[in-house]
Amino acid sequence: MIVVMKHGATAQEIAGVVQHIESLGFKAHLSTGEERTIIGVIGDERPVDPETFELCDGVERAVRILHPFKLASRDFHPQDSVVQVNGVSVGGRQVIIMAGPCSVESREQLRETAAAVKAAGAHILRGGAWKPRTSPYSFQGLGLKGLELLREARDEFQLPVVTEVMSVNEVSLIAQYADILQIGARNMQNFSLLNAVGEIQKPVLLKRGPMSTIEELLMAAEYILSRGNQRVILCERGIRTFETATRNTFDINAIPVLKSLTHLPVIADPSHGTGKWELVTPIAKAAIAAGADGVIVEVHPDPAKALSDGAQSLKPDNFAKLVAAIRRVAEAVDRTI
Amino acid sequence: MIVVMKHGATAQEIAGVVQHIESLGFKAHLSTGEERTIIGVIGDERPVDPETFELCDGVERAVRILHPFKLASRDFHPQDSVVQVNGVSVGGRQVIIMAGPCSVESREQLRETAAAVKAAGAHILRGGAWKPRTSPYSFQGLGLKGLELLREARDEFQLPVVTEVMSVNEVSLIAQYADILQIGARNMQNFSLLNAVGEIQKPVLLKRGPMSTIEELLMAAEYILSRGNQRVILCERGIRTFETATRNTFDINAIPVLKSLTHLPVIADPSHGTGKWELVTPIAKAAIAAGADGVIVEVHPDPAKALSDGAQSLKPDNFAKLVAAIRRVAEAVDRTI
Amino acid sequence: MIVVMKHGATAQEIAGVVQHIESLGFKAHLSTGEERTIIGVIGDERPVDPETFELCDGVERAVRILHPFKLASRDFHPQDSVVQVNGVSVGGRQVIIMAGPCSVESREQLRETAAAVKAAGAHILRGGAWKPRTSPYSFQGLGLKGLELLREARDEFQLPVVTEVMSVNEVSLIAQYADILQIGARNMQNFSLLNAVGEIQKPVLLKRGPMSTIEELLMAAEYILSRGNQRVILCERGIRTFETATRNTFDINAIPVLKSLTHLPVIADPSHGTGKWELVTPIAKAAIAAGADGVIVEVHPDPAKALSDGAQSLKPDNFAKLVAAIRRVAEAVDRTI
Amino acid sequence: MIVVMKHGATAQEIAGVVQHIESLGFKAHLSTGEERTIIGVIGDERPVDPETFELCDGVERAVRILHPFKLASRDFHPQDSVVQVNGVSVGGRQVIIMAGPCSVESREQLRETAAAVKAAGAHILRGGAWKPRTSPYSFQGLGLKGLELLREARDEFQLPVVTEVMSVNEVSLIAQYADILQIGARNMQNFSLLNAVGEIQKPVLLKRGPMSTIEELLMAAEYILSRGNQRVILCERGIRTFETATRNTFDINAIPVLKSLTHLPVIADPSHGTGKWELVTPIAKAAIAAGADGVIVEVHPDPAKALSDGAQSLKPDNFAKLVAAIRRVAEAVDRTI
Repeated sequence: MIVVMKHGATAQEIAGVVQHIESLGFKAHLSTGEERTIIGVIGDERPVDPETFELCDGVERAVRILHPFKLASRDFHPQDSVVQVNGVSVGGRQVIIMAGPCSVESREQLRETAAAVKAAGAHILRGGAWKPRTSPYSFQGLGLKGLELLREARDEFQLPVVTEVMSVNEVSLIAQYADILQIGARNMQNFSLLNAVGEIQKPVLLKRGPMSTIEELLMAAEYILSRGNQRVILCERGIRTFETATRNTFDINAIPVLKSLTHLPVIADPSHGTGKWELVTPIAKAAIAAGADGVIVEVHPDPAKALSDGAQSLKPDNFAKLVAAIRRVAEAVDRTI
Repeated sequence: MIVVMKHGATAQEIAGVVQHIESLGFKAHLSTGEERTIIGVIGDERPVDPETFELCDGVERAVRILHPFKLASRDFHPQDSVVQVNGVSVGGRQVIIMAGPCSVESREQLRETAAAVKAAGAHILRGGAWKPRTSPYSFQGLGLKGLELLREARDEFQLPVVTEVMSVNEVSLIAQYADILQIGARNMQNFSLLNAVGEIQKPVLLKRGPMSTIEELLMAAEYILSRGNQRVILCERGIRTFETATRNTFDINAIPVLKSLTHLPVIADPSHGTGKWELVTPIAKAAIAAGADGVIVEVHPDPAKALSDGAQSLKPDNFAKLVAAIRRVAEAVDRTI
Repeated sequence: MIVVMKHGATAQEIAGVVQHIESLGFKAHLSTGEERTIIGVIGDERPVDPETFELCDGVERAVRILHPFKLASRDFHPQDSVVQVNGVSVGGRQVIIMAGPCSVESREQLRETAAAVKAAGAHILRGGAWKPRTSPYSFQGLGLKGLELLREARDEFQLPVVTEVMSVNEVSLIAQYADILQIGARNMQNFSLLNAVGEIQKPVLLKRGPMSTIEELLMAAEYILSRGNQRVILCERGIRTFETATRNTFDINAIPVLKSLTHLPVIADPSHGTGKWELVTPIAKAAIAAGADGVIVEVHPDPAKALSDGAQSLKPDNFAKLVAAIRRVAEAVDRTI
Repeated sequence: MIVVMKHGATAQEIAGVVQHIESLGFKAHLSTGEERTIIGVIGDERPVDPETFELCDGVERAVRILHPFKLASRDFHPQDSVVQVNGVSVGGRQVIIMAGPCSVESREQLRETAAAVKAAGAHILRGGAWKPRTSPYSFQGLGLKGLELLREARDEFQLPVVTEVMSVNEVSLIAQYADILQIGARNMQNFSLLNAVGEIQKPVLLKRGPMSTIEELLMAAEYILSRGNQRVILCERGIRTFETATRNTFDINAIPVLKSLTHLPVIADPSHGTGKWELVTPIAKAAIAAGADGVIVEVHPDPAKALSDGAQSLKPDNFAKLVAAIRRVAEAVDRTI
């Protein structure tokens, strides 16, 4: 941490800051410039808020030097982590495709979708049983019935399953049915839930919040990792910006930034990242070209009748074209599907 | 809802949309313009996603006409709601002041703060027992011990207490100790939690998420209201923007916008809305001038030693000055404190 | 400037950075932490981009310590600047009101508006002759004819006039007609134009760009100041965010932040800051409560027929109510109107 | 346009709106729903602001149905436009690479860079002579001398040249030296400048403003097109968001959205879109995968000594690798380089 003193800070104010730094067990290191004195804080600054120094008299601001995450950082874990999910490796050379309906709506709908995505080449089946919806009047998911249908489809089509967990109460139940537990974007900073999935031994798919920075995403991962669960897969799914032409702005920069900051696998969700089915394939191709380890895509046999997220769901035939298209891009960046 | 057809949509495509509208129980109303046909959807559109129409062939987009919230809307409840909290009325002519430490840290810290804010004129005591923190390495709150200390201070200083609930598991416990349950900004779309506080009969302070729209805030309130709890207080606490000079951008526009859209009381949190103690008083004054029904302010006897949010906490003497300052502004807009 | 080396940077890399710092005429100051080495750059860093250091091998990032502006900074000019405009003082104890139509449309429209705002208590008349419009098909302003009408109204009603200059070509012409030259929000970083108005001796009203930071606004002011024109008035007029309920998000925090960083006067534009006439008065009150030195407000005798910005224009009677309302708030913060 | 009446609007208010619609030469088309009456405005709505209706009594809001651009729209020009630049076709099957230094600094620097980018496969040379800089204390470009050096390099290396024009005063001069005139991001809504380049017959590279929507970009193009210059190339170069890990957020979604809305060619600027040289190649690959017609990339022989934008400039050897990488991606999406 660097503490920047105000223009004209007095010797007494500087001494006060030094004392405060030392009282917290750090060493202080003074550097007197022409217009400002700055004071280095030597030691592991991660548990300390910069603001604790900003309150001392004469301080203009304090600046963090280290990233606040450690377990998620590539600095301390240079090799890529590969997360094993029932025989599927996420984060290796192979690009992984997760696909399925936004919500599980019925046995028929799920079977039809699962069969189609399996045939097209998907590795993992997605489907929501509990659904976070902006409106209390919208379809909220089938709940336990949805889990059971996912389990059936999983066994019939031999596809590991990823589904969202919305509440600490449901963690152990869902862990019995699913192969990957998804933390949805709106829950990325639901710290109770992060702690809960950190204490089980199941892979977690952690989606970036639409309002969260890359650093906050890594801090959310740090919660899970620090509780002992090392199998975390990150997912970029678009952020909220001023642009209204698309539902979200897919942050393509986040893919290579995350790959450089962390050893965890990074996948892309072009369905939520765009909100429009016509844009899903171009953005999926872009994400693979930028280095993503996989994609998660919404597919529905009849999107116009979907109970949620129809507008961004692909029909099975378009999904098959997507797989063919990203296979070519994957090869152009020396990866396989 | 209005469905806008693409330039050159065929008669068959238009017929398909009309059929889809009618299959959902609505009436369709055609309007043929020079370049586009548009189709009105007649009926209560609230439970329907515009996207269900955007998937039909030939559709360019669908536009909502009604606000998606109903119980929260002033259209159906023209009078202001006044929320009663143990003899304190939130949403009436009197401007309400909630104040206290970010986190409860110790009996001494809380008693000292409670005594000071009571003396200065606060009506309600705030304090966190469970704390949502970006980093797993930061202080996470005293938990149950914090609740007990809040209860003591509440009884000693005769101040109703507001504290945050982070998880459905803690709702019934916290409801035994607190007079108002706070839903924090990061949990504004934790729908499991919204449902849970909707099912108890305690006032709820619902903070706007830092990247949530005003409409989403009202939809979150709608969750609580639709479960039967009518005592909801809204709180503007700053949104996330590109500006980095302040921790958040306090959305002053949201105050009069909310007052016109909803009958629920609206208070302001200038501490989180700015992130810097020097800015708390000017923004509190601005919020009252714009029509807020109250403020919630962080106060700490020694901010530099606070375990959280020190930078935005006022010392007791500055808090007393804030109360004096906003009293004058309140009078200038025909309100009292 | 602080240069933060990467985890594991070599002695050779550190030496390379030191050498680069010294080659630019600065002194380097080394500080070796547990995980990172940081190097202070001693000297006036303002003309140097941090990125020049980020390119050296082994560097993680470089952080500016000083604000990049100097002439605009309160550090070097602690007293408030008061800008004199034909007998009106902007930036003193009196709150200044600028009002008038978005565009000058006709002699009648301008005279009627000028008479009304003068009667209600406005100090300065606003009106656009050249209009920046998003669409080439929208009304583009009366041009020279508009200037002449402004001049007439100025003389008849004894109100100094502010009008926008959009191009370097028009600076000297407009300077002959207007008392204040306005740089519109979209031109805040039109550096050719900033230089041009920096070279004349007329007050400049510099509006913040809708997606410009406070620091960038001050750097734009620095352009004008550095060319010799010291009479700069800053204007907060709302920024672009994800919120769509209002045209812009008025950044109320910017008012006290600017007042602390700079000596220049700061006024507020609640018309553009909200985009809706019903919100103009509450936000004007808020801005004065937060410390603004004045407001600029759009007024039109018949907003529904306005050729631009009708939705945010007040009718004369509502403008008179606004003046009465902000007078009370001004008094509550020890100012006059 | 659709005019949505308020809940409970009276028959008189509805009649008033109908009258206003008809007075503007449109036809009105009434549709009475259960909770709201909506009124369709039949006719070419492009020159009309929705707000003109929002001012009528009883109106809640007005919603545009048509895109406000026409000449730029694919609706009226379904085929891709291919812009010819001295034998180079922008917008055809071949992906075009523009490369060169941010600023022209000296004959040696420019010649060295031009030779390198030509050898690596670039089709067009970029270089700034007049530079828009945030700080008045930064290097502002060589001006006319820079143009002359660009001309020399153009002739020696047989590369068409693109350079930025910052002011209407410089348009005719720069048009004599350059093959493409660039409108920089900060000038995207400098309407005087757009009109000026619309009146010459040279290709224009129009960069999206960091704060501008896709629709505003197309309206800026509409300005140029409506003045008679049809050779406009659009450029996505990143937008400003809350994320600070990168200089801008490259809006990858904008590529396919623009390709569907307009017939104009769309290229990508991964240098400004990221601000970090390590990210330039992955984002260039992503842009091509998403359908961009080309890229514009900053290259400098010694980035650490660059007078501007060093951090995002590639060294010549890395640029050669970029070309090789995007060639493979281009082939994977059936294009050539």
